[in-house]
Amino acid sequence: MQKITLEEKFQLIEGYWSPKIVGELNGQYIKLAKFKGKFVWHAHEHEDEFFQVIKGSIVIHFRDRRVCIDEGECLIVPKGIEHKPEAADEAYVLLFEPKTTAHTGSSENKLTVPVEKQDWI
Amino acid sequence: MQKITLEEKFQLIEGYWSPKIVGELNGQYIKLAKFKGKFVWHAHEHEDEFFQVIKGSIVIHFRDRRVCIDEGECLIVPKGIEHKPEAADEAYVLLFEPKTTAHTGSSENKLTVPVEKQDWI
Repeated sequence: MQKITLEEKFQLIEGYWSPKIVGELNGQYIKLAKFKGKFVWHAHEHEDEFFQVIKGSIVIHFRDRRVCIDEGECLIVPKGIEHKPEAADEAYVLLFEPKTTAHTGSSENKLTVPVEKQDWI
Repeated sequence: MQKITLEEKFQLIEGYWSPKIVGELNGQYIKLAKFKGKFVWHAHEHEDEFFQVIKGSIVIHFRDRRVCIDEGECLIVPKGIEHKPEAADEAYVLLFEPKTTAHTGSSENKLTVPVEKQDWI
């Protein structure tokens, strides 16, 4: 049972859009990711997804609107809703998701890291 | 789908040790609580519990040691482990827990708020 120091963990992350696992509880993972640039449109068929911005700002695009999320703000994207995360500048994001969640949802592409290959840091 | 601004939500919380629900996903709740003083010894038989300190510092006592958690740090307390949270000064804490979790675990006492009476803010 080790505490998780978010800033230290983020320093271990290289690259963007590649979530790393930092904790596990009740069948869910706590993940950290650096966002920069544009991610892909995707939806998670069975899983709601929680985004908490730890540093910087991100935008989550939806088909009918966009939501800006700044440091200290969170958003839950319900299952089945298409969304596309974006960050103009580097942002640090904490995610809370079921262990089965693929970060690109049902949209497999060059950014996709298979669930079984998502690393712990 | 509304974003959650943590600072605004904490301003709505009166009193200590009384978690309020701010979000729900995948059978889990996101809760916020203000901590100050000493909570009770308790354990959650079936649920792991996630603490993230948003402001200030807390200490989680265990029977054999204690862990200090400062702003930007997190701790997962596995199910079945007795613990007693404490905060010398007011601290803001974000919790992730299954919807069924009672905050005092199996130790019912005057601080206990029944699960069905935990409010959304």
